[in-house]
Amino acid sequence: MTKILRLHPDRLFPSDSATRDIARRLYGSVKDLPIISPHGHTDPRWFAYDRPFANPAELLIIPDHYVFRMLYSQGVPLEDLGIATMDGSPTANDPRAIWRRFAERYHLFRGTPSRLWLDWVFAEAFGIDVRLEAATADHYYDVIDAALATDAFRPRALFERYNIEVIATTEGPLDPLDHHRAIRESGWSGKVVTAYRPDPVLDPDDPRFIDNVKRFCAMAGEDVGYAGYLRAHEKRRADFRAAGATSTDHGHPSAFTVNLPQQEAEALFAKVVSGPVSARDAELFRGHMLVEMARMSTEDGMVMQLHPGVHRNHNDAVRARFGKDKGADIPTAGEFVTSLKPLLDLYGNDPRLTLILFTLDEDVYSRELAPLAGHYPALRLGPPWWFHDSPEGMRRFRERMTETAGFYNSVGFNDDTRAFLSIPARHDVARRMDCGWLAQLVAEHRLEEDEAFELARALAYDLPKQAYKL
Amino acid sequence: MTKILRLHPDRLFPSDSATRDIARRLYGSVKDLPIISPHGHTDPRWFAYDRPFANPAELLIIPDHYVFRMLYSQGVPLEDLGIATMDGSPTANDPRAIWRRFAERYHLFRGTPSRLWLDWVFAEAFGIDVRLEAATADHYYDVIDAALATDAFRPRALFERYNIEVIATTEGPLDPLDHHRAIRESGWSGKVVTAYRPDPVLDPDDPRFIDNVKRFCAMAGEDVGYAGYLRAHEKRRADFRAAGATSTDHGHPSAFTVNLPQQEAEALFAKVVSGPVSARDAELFRGHMLVEMARMSTEDGMVMQLHPGVHRNHNDAVRARFGKDKGADIPTAGEFVTSLKPLLDLYGNDPRLTLILFTLDEDVYSRELAPLAGHYPALRLGPPWWFHDSPEGMRRFRERMTETAGFYNSVGFNDDTRAFLSIPARHDVARRMDCGWLAQLVAEHRLEEDEAFELARALAYDLPKQAYKL
Amino acid sequence: MTKILRLHPDRLFPSDSATRDIARRLYGSVKDLPIISPHGHTDPRWFAYDRPFANPAELLIIPDHYVFRMLYSQGVPLEDLGIATMDGSPTANDPRAIWRRFAERYHLFRGTPSRLWLDWVFAEAFGIDVRLEAATADHYYDVIDAALATDAFRPRALFERYNIEVIATTEGPLDPLDHHRAIRESGWSGKVVTAYRPDPVLDPDDPRFIDNVKRFCAMAGEDVGYAGYLRAHEKRRADFRAAGATSTDHGHPSAFTVNLPQQEAEALFAKVVSGPVSARDAELFRGHMLVEMARMSTEDGMVMQLHPGVHRNHNDAVRARFGKDKGADIPTAGEFVTSLKPLLDLYGNDPRLTLILFTLDEDVYSRELAPLAGHYPALRLGPPWWFHDSPEGMRRFRERMTETAGFYNSVGFNDDTRAFLSIPARHDVARRMDCGWLAQLVAEHRLEEDEAFELARALAYDLPKQAYKL
Repeated sequence: MTKILRLHPDRLFPSDSATRDIARRLYGSVKDLPIISPHGHTDPRWFAYDRPFANPAELLIIPDHYVFRMLYSQGVPLEDLGIATMDGSPTANDPRAIWRRFAERYHLFRGTPSRLWLDWVFAEAFGIDVRLEAATADHYYDVIDAALATDAFRPRALFERYNIEVIATTEGPLDPLDHHRAIRESGWSGKVVTAYRPDPVLDPDDPRFIDNVKRFCAMAGEDVGYAGYLRAHEKRRADFRAAGATSTDHGHPSAFTVNLPQQEAEALFAKVVSGPVSARDAELFRGHMLVEMARMSTEDGMVMQLHPGVHRNHNDAVRARFGKDKGADIPTAGEFVTSLKPLLDLYGNDPRLTLILFTLDEDVYSRELAPLAGHYPALRLGPPWWFHDSPEGMRRFRERMTETAGFYNSVGFNDDTRAFLSIPARHDVARRMDCGWLAQLVAEHRLEEDEAFELARALAYDLPKQAYKL
Repeated sequence: MTKILRLHPDRLFPSDSATRDIARRLYGSVKDLPIISPHGHTDPRWFAYDRPFANPAELLIIPDHYVFRMLYSQGVPLEDLGIATMDGSPTANDPRAIWRRFAERYHLFRGTPSRLWLDWVFAEAFGIDVRLEAATADHYYDVIDAALATDAFRPRALFERYNIEVIATTEGPLDPLDHHRAIRESGWSGKVVTAYRPDPVLDPDDPRFIDNVKRFCAMAGEDVGYAGYLRAHEKRRADFRAAGATSTDHGHPSAFTVNLPQQEAEALFAKVVSGPVSARDAELFRGHMLVEMARMSTEDGMVMQLHPGVHRNHNDAVRARFGKDKGADIPTAGEFVTSLKPLLDLYGNDPRLTLILFTLDEDVYSRELAPLAGHYPALRLGPPWWFHDSPEGMRRFRERMTETAGFYNSVGFNDDTRAFLSIPARHDVARRMDCGWLAQLVAEHRLEEDEAFELARALAYDLPKQAYKL
Repeated sequence: MTKILRLHPDRLFPSDSATRDIARRLYGSVKDLPIISPHGHTDPRWFAYDRPFANPAELLIIPDHYVFRMLYSQGVPLEDLGIATMDGSPTANDPRAIWRRFAERYHLFRGTPSRLWLDWVFAEAFGIDVRLEAATADHYYDVIDAALATDAFRPRALFERYNIEVIATTEGPLDPLDHHRAIRESGWSGKVVTAYRPDPVLDPDDPRFIDNVKRFCAMAGEDVGYAGYLRAHEKRRADFRAAGATSTDHGHPSAFTVNLPQQEAEALFAKVVSGPVSARDAELFRGHMLVEMARMSTEDGMVMQLHPGVHRNHNDAVRARFGKDKGADIPTAGEFVTSLKPLLDLYGNDPRLTLILFTLDEDVYSRELAPLAGHYPALRLGPPWWFHDSPEGMRRFRERMTETAGFYNSVGFNDDTRAFLSIPARHDVARRMDCGWLAQLVAEHRLEEDEAFELARALAYDLPKQAYKL
């Protein structure tokens, strides 16, 4: 017998009935606010050309490393899930068979946020009312596949149906921004902006770094010298701003920063663009360039985001066979107090800078990040990131950050996703969890209810708009 | 006036009534499942020879470092508790006097898991209905002492009464396994298996290491060379498997692993068995041998357990006077991402390996362990260990692990104890806490109730059986 | 329309009604107990001379780094809040204007403990019944300013109204203790004692260290040699004991300790008092002197407190312009297991020593501190400190410490404040949170209610008195 799929209207609210009543009222006031998505990884081509999405497996499984890493951890070869190989050797290519493998193992996602997001997509986006399991795999496949062929499931229609006020994509420094230009020139009213992510030309450990820097300087009409390289950043930042960008993003191995004297910086640049680079020099260059990025932000007003502390592609065998970003990125211990000091010494008190900090190391929430953000005017706290973009992760974030940093040094929610279909589900989880947390504060008489209404709205809408200058 | 001792039927369930109702239903479905105890430290002689236990103090205080360390921390000399000295100088030897000292200070255990376990033993195993305190000390002593003289309190009778389906003990690599042989040859139906814990021949920092290795090789009929040493492991692992073992266990100072080339490994072996060893060489040898143990596991199918990160016998004075394992083992910060990589590079994707990870550093739960176990097919998460084998410890484990690793990358409960009398109490705490956590997920509509029933059973029974191949 | 300010009688209690009922009963039994304040930073001159406090801004904003750092983090220049500059350049000096700036931004404190403390001061100390916001700023200013001019708001009257049984201030080693003498000689019955905080003569990184040591030895009539320096400590400790002190306090960058041989210690002393000191030598000297302080404590019975792990004055620009202690102190990762071992090897088992440990790194609660305090007789756990002196901070402390260390290895609450007006509010938060936690244990049948009553009293009153020998 198939089981019913229903999204309970009280989901994620605290179970205590007095608290839940408050949470319901708060949520009722924010659930229909437009979505502000200031940081994410959707593909601008979707919005530029509005082509239909492919089949269920290509839409929901193959690109989602949350999904396939869990299946892989339980013994399903990535080949069986249709993940493309680096050498082109064949992998599963029957999307229905891939979907069935996923459906048979859907119980593995119990208790995970993927389950919450996917169930929302199934129930709300596609109107399915039975639970996913082996017996309903084909039904799901047929319903989703048919829907994707309709106009209502094209990117722009979903964007409008999802009530997205503005969404930011993320592009690299070599991106010509053609798709963003196409969006603007199309006359469509949806607001899609880019964000400047210069890692490929900041990180000497990127295997293509030297070539990247050469192309980058060439794109900007500059010589490959330190001064030209800096000017290239300034020019490309201007190009990105012209494509709507209000922010930059930096995905460094650590939060290390350093302010090198001009001459040393020039010498270091000459070294990193000319050959093999020591680990120390690579770290120095990244750390120095973060400071340079902060300087440029004080000049051009772009909000800066720092996402440090991941051991990327930890599984060598998976990387060799399937490439990067295959669910094997593992967080490492974080440190901000010493690492960020050189940057903060220069710009931490500068009213022109906003630096939004993210971490995967929850230990630094109460120990480092909340005290730093509760003091430095330039700092703000990004939302719980990646693995912690989840009910318990959000609860820990508020519990550990709020008492020291307050609510107003946080910037509301980022969905940070390429899983476009699930964007409203992710914002909905955040709104529900924030309302639940606020309801607990009200129920425990740590906050008045009128204040909680203001905060619920601030966290869902006002703070991300203000922090990202959108 | 004496106070009543009663174990409330709703103990450890969430207090919210709607959630508690769900927890009761879930718990009702698992409370009578047989006990699977895949990792612990009971003494195989108990089951081999079925001799009665001694008096209350020797059963419940003197061997339990949880109990005597707490009394010690509040100023009770270990001598007064009958802990034996290394030099044989006398300590308290009146078990009733020792029991009274404990009873007078039973309030010190308020809020600790020891209190939960002991109260269960008092009420359920011995049928006592008044609370332990100075006034009831003698009553307790008399009741327990009398019960221990009866057949119903012999090890095998308790084993059967406790509904233990299978229990694993832990033996060192030099153990002749005679007691396990005696169990098998006795014709008794209880299933008691061993586990292979080769630390004494893997750890050059063990003061008896060189002698251990010599005896170990001799036991296996091998020369004391690297090749012979490896073959000795293979032979002894086979001996252990013949005594029912399905797992190995490794208690290293850290999770460090390294894959040394053959020639370096040989040279290192020659060094560590011939004289004083540097800290670095000891770590290298342990790290290399963990990788060798993983290799052997891929060949012989033994499940591997790693228990790293304890500063053992931190208190020099206590160690000198009373020896090892006297309640002064203190956890240290853990690290797995870099440390385990060499092992994972070789065997992390190997379907033949199961490596179960434990930690005392809760900080790595969400940062390192859940992401690792949520990706690598070979990895599973051991239950909250030692200090964290407690209601709050279990809650933190589920809260921080589940969203990233899911339930199915965890292996259910280990009691990990030598306190045989309390084994059902420990499993009961785990079942109650897991049902409470599942009930919360159901009450918050993050999981359907039928799924929670499946998970409650999986965590209590199916997962440990599967993970340990029992 | 102005909003009502009311302190709900159930504030901070769990929202579940069964648990809340228990919390109410427990709290009812402790709410009127006298305040024991064994560690804090009130000014002894207040109690010695009983002069009225100045205006609202000088009483509640300018000295409170919790308050002004939050305003600063949101862009309010410290100059605008009347914080004095190092060079004497002018800052805001209209207290009413400062108060208005604060009032307009009072929403920034939502969810922080400052909000709880301040609302208590407004409602309970001053009897204000509307909420603070821009519209009520002047009303607040007028009410508070008028009250401060009355005898009822002089320090001694507040001390008595606040039901303070004993309060400890903290003085440096060069303090002549005149104000404490004046208190004793005044005939006033209030019990105000000092505590010995020798950091200025223990820390070679203090810019005035050498001069401090010279004055210190001179004060004690000793030569500036190692033996004289140690005798000076012994004499000054005796002076402090004569002024009621029962404790010492040590605010070191880390918990590092070392026991140097006599000759090395002498040589190190000669180095640190004669010129520029390396970071390593400074750490060695501090670490060695902590061990010496422990030795003296075993001799004179003073309870020792250790507050390690803060990067003080992280913001160079703020320090240069406004000096020390301006809200830019940031915690760093803590480590006790290795760091404290040399001290514990000597005195950890000594019944004459009580060493109370504090940390800002909550990660060490369950990993290091609870296991250490649950074993060593000399160790006790200080309450959640500084940033964690808050509802969530207290909850985490009990959740992570209790199961391993028990309640009786903790020492109840310290307010640790210079904000005299808020002292009852701080103790009230602690009593409410502890009663809420105990109520949860009772509601979950982990503790009997009669035991919870005993514990509530112990945590609020008995344990601090005993631990600090007051």
